[in-house]
Amino acid sequence: MENQPRFAVIGGGSWATAIAKMLCENQSKIAWYMRNEAAVEHIKEQNHNPNYLSSVEFHTEQLVLTNDINEAVNFADCVIFAIPSAFLNTELKKLTVDLSDKIIFSAIKGIVPETSLIVGEHFHKTYNISYENIGVITGPCHAEEVALERLSYLTIACGDRLKAKMVAKNLSSDYIKTKISDDIVGTEYAAVLKNIYAIAAGIAHGLGYGDNFQAVLMSNAIREMKKFIKEVHQMKRNINNSAYLGDLLVTGYSVFSRNRMFGNMIGKGYTVKSAQMEMSMIAEGYYASKSAYEINQKLGAKTPIIDAVYSILYENKDPKKIFKKLIEKLD
Amino acid sequence: MENQPRFAVIGGGSWATAIAKMLCENQSKIAWYMRNEAAVEHIKEQNHNPNYLSSVEFHTEQLVLTNDINEAVNFADCVIFAIPSAFLNTELKKLTVDLSDKIIFSAIKGIVPETSLIVGEHFHKTYNISYENIGVITGPCHAEEVALERLSYLTIACGDRLKAKMVAKNLSSDYIKTKISDDIVGTEYAAVLKNIYAIAAGIAHGLGYGDNFQAVLMSNAIREMKKFIKEVHQMKRNINNSAYLGDLLVTGYSVFSRNRMFGNMIGKGYTVKSAQMEMSMIAEGYYASKSAYEINQKLGAKTPIIDAVYSILYENKDPKKIFKKLIEKLD
Repeated sequence: MENQPRFAVIGGGSWATAIAKMLCENQSKIAWYMRNEAAVEHIKEQNHNPNYLSSVEFHTEQLVLTNDINEAVNFADCVIFAIPSAFLNTELKKLTVDLSDKIIFSAIKGIVPETSLIVGEHFHKTYNISYENIGVITGPCHAEEVALERLSYLTIACGDRLKAKMVAKNLSSDYIKTKISDDIVGTEYAAVLKNIYAIAAGIAHGLGYGDNFQAVLMSNAIREMKKFIKEVHQMKRNINNSAYLGDLLVTGYSVFSRNRMFGNMIGKGYTVKSAQMEMSMIAEGYYASKSAYEINQKLGAKTPIIDAVYSILYENKDPKKIFKKLIEKLD
Repeated sequence: MENQPRFAVIGGGSWATAIAKMLCENQSKIAWYMRNEAAVEHIKEQNHNPNYLSSVEFHTEQLVLTNDINEAVNFADCVIFAIPSAFLNTELKKLTVDLSDKIIFSAIKGIVPETSLIVGEHFHKTYNISYENIGVITGPCHAEEVALERLSYLTIACGDRLKAKMVAKNLSSDYIKTKISDDIVGTEYAAVLKNIYAIAAGIAHGLGYGDNFQAVLMSNAIREMKKFIKEVHQMKRNINNSAYLGDLLVTGYSVFSRNRMFGNMIGKGYTVKSAQMEMSMIAEGYYASKSAYEINQKLGAKTPIIDAVYSILYENKDPKKIFKKLIEKLD
C-alpha cells in the first residue's frame, strides 16, 4: 500500500453514491464502477447520479467513472463493494484483475446467496484474501442523510488496525465521524441481521401493532442479535455500540427502509411475490432471513424473531398467526 | 393483604387513566383519586375522563371515584401513584391514612424535587415503608396505545416477588403482557433517565440533526444509562430488557413524547421558559436532568448527554454550541 492509497467504489446505488461522495471529500481521484452505462454517461455529463441521491453534485475530474469493473479495481489499492449481495458473485465473475494484493472493504449488508457467507468470509474463503486485508464499513447511516451532509457516524472494522484507520480517515469529514473496530465478523453480521429485524418491525406495523410493541421488538431484537453473533464469533464486544444497536435502530425505526417497507406490505396481506413486484426491488433482508435461519440451524441460538420472519417469508405462514405466537416469546 | 387485594389509583392524567383501565379489566371495583373535581363529576356522569384518554369508556359501578385522597387510599391494599413527581409531596401531605400497611407502587417517572430521590426511595426514607412493600410499574408504554388496546408490555418490579406477581396479574389482559423484576431501583432510574435522553433527542431534532445521529444518540444513551444505574445500585441486570432499553426507545423515538417535544422547542431556539409556557405543562425530564446531574456529581459516572442537557436547561448555554461539543464525545 502506498502512502496515498487509491480507492474504487463498486456499485451505482444510493450507498455506493454516498461512499463515493465521502471519498471525494478526501481524495483527488477515485474510481467508480457501475453496471448501468446510461448512469455513467449521465454522471459524466450532468455531475449527478440520475437514479440515486441525485441531489449530490460530483466533480467529474475527481472520478474515473467506468462500467468496466476491471478498470476500477485495477485503479485502486482499496476496493469498496457496495452492491446488493445477490449480485456480488455475478460481478466478481467478470474480474480478471488479481484481487490478492488489494484491500477489500464491504459496504454490503447481506449474505452471499451462493455460499451463505457474509461478504468478508466470502472473500476470505473464495478468493483466499487474508482477514488482514478485509474490512467492513457499517452505519448507522442512511445514504440519504449523507447526501444532505447530516452528521453521521460510521464504524470501520478490519483485522488490520492500520488499514481500518486509513479507510476511516478517507471517509471522515465535517459530517462523517468514524470509529474503528476489529470485529469484522460481528459488525457485518449485525448489518445483515438488522435487515431481518427491520422486516419484522414492518410486519408488526402492517399488522397494526403500535409503538409500544415496536420498542419491545427492538429490545428483544438486540438481545437476539447478541446471542446469534456470539455463537458465530465469540469476542468481547459491546452490542450497544453504534455499529450494532445504532445500526439496528436506524433501520428498524426508518419508514424509508426498504426492508421495513417490504415487511409492512407482508403484514398488510401482500404475498411475498406481490410485495416484491410492487417494490420493484428486493429487500436484502429477504435473502438474509433465509441464510440466517439456515446458519442458525447449526448455531442453535434462540432466535424467535428470525424464525418468525423466516416462516412467514419462506414457509408461507400467516403473519397474523405467527406474530400471535411470537409475542408470547418476547418480554 | 387479602386474597383479593384492592387497588387505588392516584392521579387523573393519561397514565393514571390507562392504569385504571388496566385494573378494571381484572377488578370488580377500584378506587380512583384525582384532584380535579370537575373531572370526577364528568367521569361519574359521562363514563369518560374529559381531559385524558377520553376515548376510554369506564363502567362507573367499578369505580370509587373521589377527590379525597384519603378515601382512595383507605379503600385499598395497594396504592398506585401516577402523578407528576413535582406534585407528589403536596398530595402526600394531605394524607391522614396510615401508609405503613399498604403496598405502594410507583408509576411516576420522575425524581421528587424536595428530596432528590426516586419515588421508591422517597417512600422508603420519608414514610419508612419497607422495600418489600414498594414497587415500580414501568413501560415501554404510551398510555395512548393502552387506550387503543394495542399490545403493550409492562415490567412490574418489587422487592417482594409475590407482590410483583400480584400486581402484574391485576394489570394483565389480552393487550397487556407483564414481566416481573426485582430491580426496583434500576427500573425506576431508567424510567427517569429516559426522559432526559428524550429531551436530548428533541434538542438534536430541533437543531437539524437527522435519523443517523438519533440512532447514535440512543446507542450512546443506553450505554450512559447503564453506567449511571450501575453506580446507583450494582446488580445483575440486562440493560437491553424492555424496562430499560425498550422504555428509552418508546420515549426517545416518539414524536408525541412531551419531553422530546420540549427538547425540540429548545433546539429550535425557544428559551426554557417560553417552551414551558407554550406547552402549558412541564416535561418530567426537565426536573430529572437537574436531579440526575446533581446525583451524578457524587456518583461520578461519565454522562456527557445528561451533562449537555443540564447545561442547556439550567446554565442557559447555547444548544448549538453544547451539541457541537457533545458530538465529539459520542461514538
